[in-house]
Amino acid sequence: MFEKFVELLSEKRFSDLRAMLADINAMDLAPIFDELDAEQRVLLFRLLPKELAAETFVEMDGDCQQALIKSFSDKELKAVIDELYLDDAVDIIEEMPAGVVKRILRQSDSETRKAINELLNYPKDSAGSIMTPEFVDLKRDMTVDDAVNHIRKTGIDKETVYTCYVTGPDRKLEGIVTVKDLLLADPNDKISNIMETHVIYAGTLDDKEDVAKIFNKYDFLALPVVDKENRLVGIVTVDDAMDVIEDENTEDIEKMAAIIPNDRPYLKTGVFETFKKRVPWLMILMVSATFTGAIISSFEDKLKSIVVLTSFIPMLMDTGGNSGSQAAVTVIRGLSLDEIHLRDIFKVLFKELRVGLVCGLTLGVVNFVKILLVDYLLLGTFSGYEFPAVCMISATVCLTMALTVVVAKLVGCTLPILAEALRFDPAVMASPFITTIVDAISLLIYFGATNVFLGALM
Amino acid sequence: MFEKFVELLSEKRFSDLRAMLADINAMDLAPIFDELDAEQRVLLFRLLPKELAAETFVEMDGDCQQALIKSFSDKELKAVIDELYLDDAVDIIEEMPAGVVKRILRQSDSETRKAINELLNYPKDSAGSIMTPEFVDLKRDMTVDDAVNHIRKTGIDKETVYTCYVTGPDRKLEGIVTVKDLLLADPNDKISNIMETHVIYAGTLDDKEDVAKIFNKYDFLALPVVDKENRLVGIVTVDDAMDVIEDENTEDIEKMAAIIPNDRPYLKTGVFETFKKRVPWLMILMVSATFTGAIISSFEDKLKSIVVLTSFIPMLMDTGGNSGSQAAVTVIRGLSLDEIHLRDIFKVLFKELRVGLVCGLTLGVVNFVKILLVDYLLLGTFSGYEFPAVCMISATVCLTMALTVVVAKLVGCTLPILAEALRFDPAVMASPFITTIVDAISLLIYFGATNVFLGALM
Repeated sequence: MFEKFVELLSEKRFSDLRAMLADINAMDLAPIFDELDAEQRVLLFRLLPKELAAETFVEMDGDCQQALIKSFSDKELKAVIDELYLDDAVDIIEEMPAGVVKRILRQSDSETRKAINELLNYPKDSAGSIMTPEFVDLKRDMTVDDAVNHIRKTGIDKETVYTCYVTGPDRKLEGIVTVKDLLLADPNDKISNIMETHVIYAGTLDDKEDVAKIFNKYDFLALPVVDKENRLVGIVTVDDAMDVIEDENTEDIEKMAAIIPNDRPYLKTGVFETFKKRVPWLMILMVSATFTGAIISSFEDKLKSIVVLTSFIPMLMDTGGNSGSQAAVTVIRGLSLDEIHLRDIFKVLFKELRVGLVCGLTLGVVNFVKILLVDYLLLGTFSGYEFPAVCMISATVCLTMALTVVVAKLVGCTLPILAEALRFDPAVMASPFITTIVDAISLLIYFGATNVFLGALM
Repeated sequence: MFEKFVELLSEKRFSDLRAMLADINAMDLAPIFDELDAEQRVLLFRLLPKELAAETFVEMDGDCQQALIKSFSDKELKAVIDELYLDDAVDIIEEMPAGVVKRILRQSDSETRKAINELLNYPKDSAGSIMTPEFVDLKRDMTVDDAVNHIRKTGIDKETVYTCYVTGPDRKLEGIVTVKDLLLADPNDKISNIMETHVIYAGTLDDKEDVAKIFNKYDFLALPVVDKENRLVGIVTVDDAMDVIEDENTEDIEKMAAIIPNDRPYLKTGVFETFKKRVPWLMILMVSATFTGAIISSFEDKLKSIVVLTSFIPMLMDTGGNSGSQAAVTVIRGLSLDEIHLRDIFKVLFKELRVGLVCGLTLGVVNFVKILLVDYLLLGTFSGYEFPAVCMISATVCLTMALTVVVAKLVGCTLPILAEALRFDPAVMASPFITTIVDAISLLIYFGATNVFLGALM
């Protein structure tokens, strides 16, 4: 489709272009703009009907928006801004350099400018930062018919008309009415008779993640946001809540992989920026592996006398790490979906203890058989050892394995819950962090078991 | 709140209970039912207004629903089923044992029974399995006024009335009209004049994850679903799409942590079931660690002559594993959000190469300083070695570190993209899998570098 657009643009076949534009969605059109060159971009943008132009503009990437704004006349810029929903305008402004922001604000009328400035002032992750101040505002003594006429007159500029908000003096939120309620009610009925007064709402400073959770739980299409004085100042719509959910999931996944979360898509992030998000945790984890090294150093003599023990270290550490991260990730996800709470810690511990025992025993037994069949018979790893010694060594390795799995599961499930209790983000406690701890524990168990069971061989 | 309900129930203060129920939401009421005992549960359920009863029933957990159904008379059961949306009814039926399903179907009228059976037949992860056949159906020659009256008459039973579907002969989908369009249009205008004919839809057999992505991209409130003959058979609403997104995110996170995905919440899953989801990958990864062991075994002699080399193995393996999983997880998430595509593989490789080089060099240098300051001077790990030898060993370790980080990043970003190309799930290629591969590679680099640079010490 991109090629078709370029062809029609370079041949200046504008009526064909208009016909193509009639059938296209803003979401599909925006990526085409991102790839066009500067001149064609402006040309095509000027062909768009006003509403589609604004919708498409919102979906373009920041560089493309900035380039277009530069080539706009003041009048064109004003036309685009007037067409935007305020929350979208704010999202765009947040990405722009100061000079462009000034120009945008200069082209907005004073009321819009005031609203934009207010929205820009809410903290980054707050409900206020994702809300729009444009909603349908009804009064309790309107009739259903009045309300429908009010929507007809003002609805065109609102992001959603399907949930309407009834406010009293001082803009206090008194109730909500859905358009479904309005359609099904008697036209002469009073709004106060049909409105729902038990309204769930958010505060402007609430965390946007909590707001998204409310949408998930209650299946709302929009949620009212009130300020400290309980005045209705805006609404969050379900599409914005969905974006928050995806962003928060990405953030959690990044944290679990020891990455500092990043707002921008991977391919749009520079090498140095990516480096800065990744190196801190790598550094911390690398340095903390000093402990593991120290444990091994202190057992050097024993490792020298039964060198084959060294070859099992990676397997023990990896299996421990994987077991721990399974438990950790499960618990972290459970906490974030509100399926697990602080008070469940003993339930979780007891469960992980049992799961750990079954996993540990199974892996231990399989590993014992594997060592004898593969390492001893097939690979000859144990050359120079008598069969009873091989069995003793294998048994020690497998006992370590079983114990490590159990401990790893317990550590893995405990740390995220502790983090939650201390109001840290549980996601930071995931695999890499737990791997480092479990590594040290598995080596201590290993060398302890070696001392007890293999003393005679050393 | 739970205690309050128990108290009022045991004192049979029904009017107080009714007053409490007037202000409560189904989502908040359902968990209370889950915790009540059997007798109180039935008592409270009978106090609920019809609509709230159905809404609450949908939100209860399976055991609670089943217990209630058992205590219902046939008449009560029929009343609840009649009140449910069909897609919710199907979700409930899917969880019930055969005997209960039969009883539910016997209490449904023949039309509902037929619809339920059709929905039950769609594959588990298809659009058909999450859609509802109840939507507002308009005709192209209706006027706007006719359409509004049609919604007034039939809308009460529809999950959403805000998007209406215009169908022609044979139930073919011809266009959509939103209630906003209807409200803003002239009442005498024809539907065919105001309907949007460029409709985005899904097929009944499309993957529900793709359907959820459409919602995310286009910010829809509902999406029409058509069968193979292009007949409109149902719609998916945004709340169901949000559930799919959360479920898919959980699945991805579980896969990345080497867990086989599980439908049920953690605390409701039995120990043996959890074991079965976790042990397969642990087993595979444990057995594949045999390679790492074999590599170490083949270098036993050299490790014996410079035993201090062993103490750096955990750090090298862990840092390699963490670096690889950072790249892997970033790419997996990018693929699943459609930010990265197959064709980007060389862009991704080039970027990870550069990020890997910067990370590797930084970590290598820091590590060199750390080894000299902490391990050599502070911990005395190198007792018995001359200072030049210590520097040579540290340099070898740090060179290995830098190279391992670069290779880990490249492996980590390549495997998920390859998986996508081969139509496997990229998420399976995450950290644990990559750790196993990177472990082996890091050891090979380590021992190779040892041979080249430390030959004189052995």
